[in-house]
Amino acid sequence: MTPERQATGQPTPALLFDTINAYQRTEAIKSAIELGLFTAIAAGNTTAKDIAQACGASERGARILCDYLVIIGLLNKQNGNYGLTPDSAMFLDRRSPAYMGTVIDFMLSPMLTDNFKQLTAAVRKGGTASDEDTVVAPDHPVWVKFARAMVPMMAMPSQLLAPMVDPEANQKLKILDIAAGHGLYGLAFAKRNPKAQVTAVDWPNVLEVAKENAQAAGVLDRYHTKPGSAFDVDYGTGYDIILLTNFLHHFDPATCETLLRKVRGALADGGRAVTLEFVPNDDRVTPPQAAAFSMMMLGATPGGDAYTFAELERMFQNVGFARSELHELPPTIQRVVISYK
Amino acid sequence: MTPERQATGQPTPALLFDTINAYQRTEAIKSAIELGLFTAIAAGNTTAKDIAQACGASERGARILCDYLVIIGLLNKQNGNYGLTPDSAMFLDRRSPAYMGTVIDFMLSPMLTDNFKQLTAAVRKGGTASDEDTVVAPDHPVWVKFARAMVPMMAMPSQLLAPMVDPEANQKLKILDIAAGHGLYGLAFAKRNPKAQVTAVDWPNVLEVAKENAQAAGVLDRYHTKPGSAFDVDYGTGYDIILLTNFLHHFDPATCETLLRKVRGALADGGRAVTLEFVPNDDRVTPPQAAAFSMMMLGATPGGDAYTFAELERMFQNVGFARSELHELPPTIQRVVISYK
Repeated sequence: MTPERQATGQPTPALLFDTINAYQRTEAIKSAIELGLFTAIAAGNTTAKDIAQACGASERGARILCDYLVIIGLLNKQNGNYGLTPDSAMFLDRRSPAYMGTVIDFMLSPMLTDNFKQLTAAVRKGGTASDEDTVVAPDHPVWVKFARAMVPMMAMPSQLLAPMVDPEANQKLKILDIAAGHGLYGLAFAKRNPKAQVTAVDWPNVLEVAKENAQAAGVLDRYHTKPGSAFDVDYGTGYDIILLTNFLHHFDPATCETLLRKVRGALADGGRAVTLEFVPNDDRVTPPQAAAFSMMMLGATPGGDAYTFAELERMFQNVGFARSELHELPPTIQRVVISYK
Repeated sequence: MTPERQATGQPTPALLFDTINAYQRTEAIKSAIELGLFTAIAAGNTTAKDIAQACGASERGARILCDYLVIIGLLNKQNGNYGLTPDSAMFLDRRSPAYMGTVIDFMLSPMLTDNFKQLTAAVRKGGTASDEDTVVAPDHPVWVKFARAMVPMMAMPSQLLAPMVDPEANQKLKILDIAAGHGLYGLAFAKRNPKAQVTAVDWPNVLEVAKENAQAAGVLDRYHTKPGSAFDVDYGTGYDIILLTNFLHHFDPATCETLLRKVRGALADGGRAVTLEFVPNDDRVTPPQAAAFSMMMLGATPGGDAYTFAELERMFQNVGFARSELHELPPTIQRVVISYK
């Protein structure tokens, strides 16, 4: 994402061709992950020949793929030897605790990517051109894939969010985790605070994944579930904290407000709604990753968006929340909005 | 293509996610071209609302697409108004003489892009995973599409190549244009030099396009055609110049040498083979666009490649050429190899 490249100099079609061919970047990273190429390099295979052998690939194929990964910034090359960058060593070596290769199972599932084959129609219509079977359809199986594949991506933000919201971690805390998915956000509270009780809402199959994770975290006795749609399920009342992590972006503002009204009703006095989201600045083009998430929502949902803080603040205000605060969550690219009942 | 982003600082998954989602860049530029979005902005529509109306799109779709194009560097945005960059003004406004929007008809034809759905298999195999119907198959219809769609991309290099090779443009010159396609490279010689005779080799349907262009250029009387495979057709003999523009990259070195032997045989004494190609440096990762072309060949051909000058020089030497010279062709990203019989 390098708009600065365009700022000066003669026009050239280089960026246009890079952009037209960008799909090859997607396929290259997918193939490299599937082949375990980064792991093979981490294990000491640095020539195309050795990498090919370690990955069950041809030398020519390994050489061309590795060179391409150098060009797009995911490998280094010196004297014909390939090496990992700091990013690929951290996130793409299977032996790294921060390995993220699994995210392609969700992020490159046809359920998501096929939407973009009809992007022109989506731009005309103003929302996904898939008439049925969208990601917001009831009990869609893609969310089980999400819950399993996206754990590595969510580990860091979930571990940063809980201490921000519950720094002392020693008081009774009743938490509702809406569209809990893998459950990591709620579980991070339960793991830090032995007096925290967490109730997770999601589709039944997805909650099975969350319960596995609760068991692994040793907090299953304080983990409760309410299967069903976040719009329909009876939440109960008296929650100190209601988590809305990566959820509001799927819906248009009116639908968000319907949900937020219900959220407010389930909060105890003094309770807080905690929203984790891709929140672009008011210019809607920075920071690039958060802002670009709007495109994902245009392709994949009828009316979702990456909302600015001003837009989120207004939705919470419209349903009666007293005030909302914006927090950064560095080094993640997501932001946190804390809204007080 | 920003490897420098990785050089310093904490590892972040930003580049990984950008790369995984890169397919959205391809779809965004395709949709913007299909909708005539850049042309609408050039015509004075600068708000999402006005752009939407001019393109027959929804305001929400236009806003999200425009913001995304700002993020990836193909538009500017100031105070909510969108504007063209120097690149998009030159190459993506339909009213610009350098308009290149048509290139997507070839570059994003399923014939090319579908190959990358099996990239992992291609890396294993060392060449395209399509068993049949590859771009090098006899008389493949994709080359008619190529000949029509790629004219804007070839206009500049063809206009630069002829004066480099035939600066005086006043001597009798017998030229053979192998895999002529649209015919632009040979036609640039014929247009400058009234004593130049050009013979074009390509599939019969493709030559029809070249002949249209020869007629439009007013040189049809000095334009001759030899329909068929460049490997099978009888070239004749006594050529001063034989053009090999964007052709050798489709084949493995042994196949290239078979062709070059035939080329040498058709040259007059003192004749020159003129090769225009994506020629990466010996490191095979710079310059980025030329080097990345290897990936296109891995996906789309059984054994093609973006050859270095050393590799091309060796092929010409192996079949008896006396010497080869490398020339830049600025501002294009292609290079020229002139090989002397």
